[in-house]
Amino acid sequence: MAVNPCFRKGDLGLMSKKIYGELKPPERLLLGAGPSNIDPRVQRALSLPIVEHLDPYFMEVMDEIVELLRYAFKTSNYMTFPISGTGSAGMESAICNVIEEGDEIIICISGFFGERMSEMAQRYGGKVIEVRAPWGRVIEKEAVEDALANSKAKAVAIVHAETSTGILQPLKEISRIVHEYGALLIVDAVTSLGGCELDVDGWGIDICYSASQKCLSCPPGLAPITVSERAMNIIRNRRTKVRSWYLDLSTMEKYWLESNRVYHHTAPILLIYALREGLRLLYEEGLENRWARHEENHRALVKGLEEMGLEIFADRNYMCPAITAVNVPKGVSDEAVRRTLREEYNIVISGGLGELKGRIWRIGLMGINSNKKNILLVLEALKNALKKEEAKKPNNNKQP
Amino acid sequence: MAVNPCFRKGDLGLMSKKIYGELKPPERLLLGAGPSNIDPRVQRALSLPIVEHLDPYFMEVMDEIVELLRYAFKTSNYMTFPISGTGSAGMESAICNVIEEGDEIIICISGFFGERMSEMAQRYGGKVIEVRAPWGRVIEKEAVEDALANSKAKAVAIVHAETSTGILQPLKEISRIVHEYGALLIVDAVTSLGGCELDVDGWGIDICYSASQKCLSCPPGLAPITVSERAMNIIRNRRTKVRSWYLDLSTMEKYWLESNRVYHHTAPILLIYALREGLRLLYEEGLENRWARHEENHRALVKGLEEMGLEIFADRNYMCPAITAVNVPKGVSDEAVRRTLREEYNIVISGGLGELKGRIWRIGLMGINSNKKNILLVLEALKNALKKEEAKKPNNNKQP
Repeated sequence: MAVNPCFRKGDLGLMSKKIYGELKPPERLLLGAGPSNIDPRVQRALSLPIVEHLDPYFMEVMDEIVELLRYAFKTSNYMTFPISGTGSAGMESAICNVIEEGDEIIICISGFFGERMSEMAQRYGGKVIEVRAPWGRVIEKEAVEDALANSKAKAVAIVHAETSTGILQPLKEISRIVHEYGALLIVDAVTSLGGCELDVDGWGIDICYSASQKCLSCPPGLAPITVSERAMNIIRNRRTKVRSWYLDLSTMEKYWLESNRVYHHTAPILLIYALREGLRLLYEEGLENRWARHEENHRALVKGLEEMGLEIFADRNYMCPAITAVNVPKGVSDEAVRRTLREEYNIVISGGLGELKGRIWRIGLMGINSNKKNILLVLEALKNALKKEEAKKPNNNKQP
Repeated sequence: MAVNPCFRKGDLGLMSKKIYGELKPPERLLLGAGPSNIDPRVQRALSLPIVEHLDPYFMEVMDEIVELLRYAFKTSNYMTFPISGTGSAGMESAICNVIEEGDEIIICISGFFGERMSEMAQRYGGKVIEVRAPWGRVIEKEAVEDALANSKAKAVAIVHAETSTGILQPLKEISRIVHEYGALLIVDAVTSLGGCELDVDGWGIDICYSASQKCLSCPPGLAPITVSERAMNIIRNRRTKVRSWYLDLSTMEKYWLESNRVYHHTAPILLIYALREGLRLLYEEGLENRWARHEENHRALVKGLEEMGLEIFADRNYMCPAITAVNVPKGVSDEAVRRTLREEYNIVISGGLGELKGRIWRIGLMGINSNKKNILLVLEALKNALKKEEAKKPNNNKQP
């Protein structure tokens, strides 16, 4: 390729010699904490012709997305749509729409994403009351009740499936207590939506958000959210505007749900196509069938891991079917094993986040990836990678 | 399709009878204000295998995106990457990273997107000094100087290509004045990047953001941004944290630019693939060739529109090559004409926003869509649609 005529040498010296070739990504099996592999039907939807964000055809797609998301969340909430950002944008939207300067909020923390919620709430001026449990354990309802009794908390925020530890948090009892105290319940369902039992209306969740790239087998970039009327009443009666314009639910509502569709921003049209296809797959399979499949494959994976002598990290009574955390055996290099899996088998599993870095592996079986073939593959590859590590140890190099 | 077993009748009654069919979007020619049609090479990139956001392969792609964006923006700014949201997320990030409670900021408003910047700055506690010009005119440098002389403004924010009016705002002189007063210059280049002359370093722009779905011919969902060291020094020395966690540049920096790549959020991997291909197309064509193509086709479109007797809305000395605004002739229904174009020709042009609703049409020739064939098509289709409207008038039904 000829050197570009308007290229300025010096400033961008590196680039003048550079040829940018075709994208050639490796074909990875993504069995980590997400993103998961994309269902081929979903990926085909990305090849369809783009229309405008106010095209009559797109409005039909938007209506269907709202219906299908209500199905996925098990809710009849009017306020149900995808936010144009990743799961963290969903988290921030849930928090910044509720919290005003000085509001008290209880944040339950037993992993990385609880910490993130606390950080966000503080940035928006919230007085955060943290309810903590050790990473890998669930939050006890008594601790939440104590915090509610000793505060004027407007809301309690909690992670349903803590991707960083592999814990699935029971919510029903906590929800009952939260509402006894007149607070709102905010739930992070990033890793649970479409993979584990989740019942927004049945459990009384007020705000629930998720992400497209986990159990929905869609590309990353969208954060489905649903908000109860109880929460919307509070949001609509705020003293101050939501600080973030981009994540303001009331203005998104005008675009997503009102019949005259006021332009808010240019929706990521192709990602919305993809999400519709991902939700259609969920609808065709049926929520309960989907949950049962994830549960069954999770059990098989746990059995296989334990037969290899590995130890589950999370409290065994509260394991999340979509992601399984196991301890890295003593003396084994987390990174070396993951490198072997990636480089020799094109299989990706995740390491630990934050305080668990180097201490656990996290194996995800999400959406299309939750199947028997993948369990066999990851178990065999992991065995081989561990053998390779074993062979590296000095005492194993000696001949008997 | 069988009724889903876990479907709850009553709550979601509508859905129980519904079959969700294949997506079959119409093949529109998108000659409006954006999104534009996607280059086929870009769309093919969306079909490639997904990898994780921390995969070594993806890190190479990220590095190339940074280089190519520096080329597109004509900058050597270290802080250059795409934000995981649409253009409005880029706008909000530019503003909320600079503004702290009580800071003065000058916002130049001569169209819809200037208004949006003002709204955002106020939400983040900024004291906004508005410099206004009538919609369809440019902001005069003298007005900016007056505002600077009478304030302690930390920054001046201005739209380069005002998509709502078709105006291309000169920036060089304003930049000089802004820096004389020690303020930062924030520029909205949503519609200009990759379509009109833009020289971030040459013109001394401190923060410049754009969007993927206009002249880059990529799908919507990403907002490229570049930030000068001068601006980063101010951002790094803030008294308070940026309110928005999701749009905080300093934490994104750790993921996009630092060698140890601290996880921030799951990047929209496939959109990043697409952006790389869109930027590669720009790099291959060459920035100046690209600008010349947009300019030439814009002139041909204006000529054709005027030959039809239509009147350009924007100040003729400052027309934006990527989007041309024309007045809706008196007595003609804006919506009827656009409906004819859409329904009979599958061609989309945009109406007016805000105060210009019903008064102008906006015809975009952006990225791949800036070509001679499209000019012929839109002019002929518009002629036919106008004839159809003419024929509806009562006096035209009389025989001579």
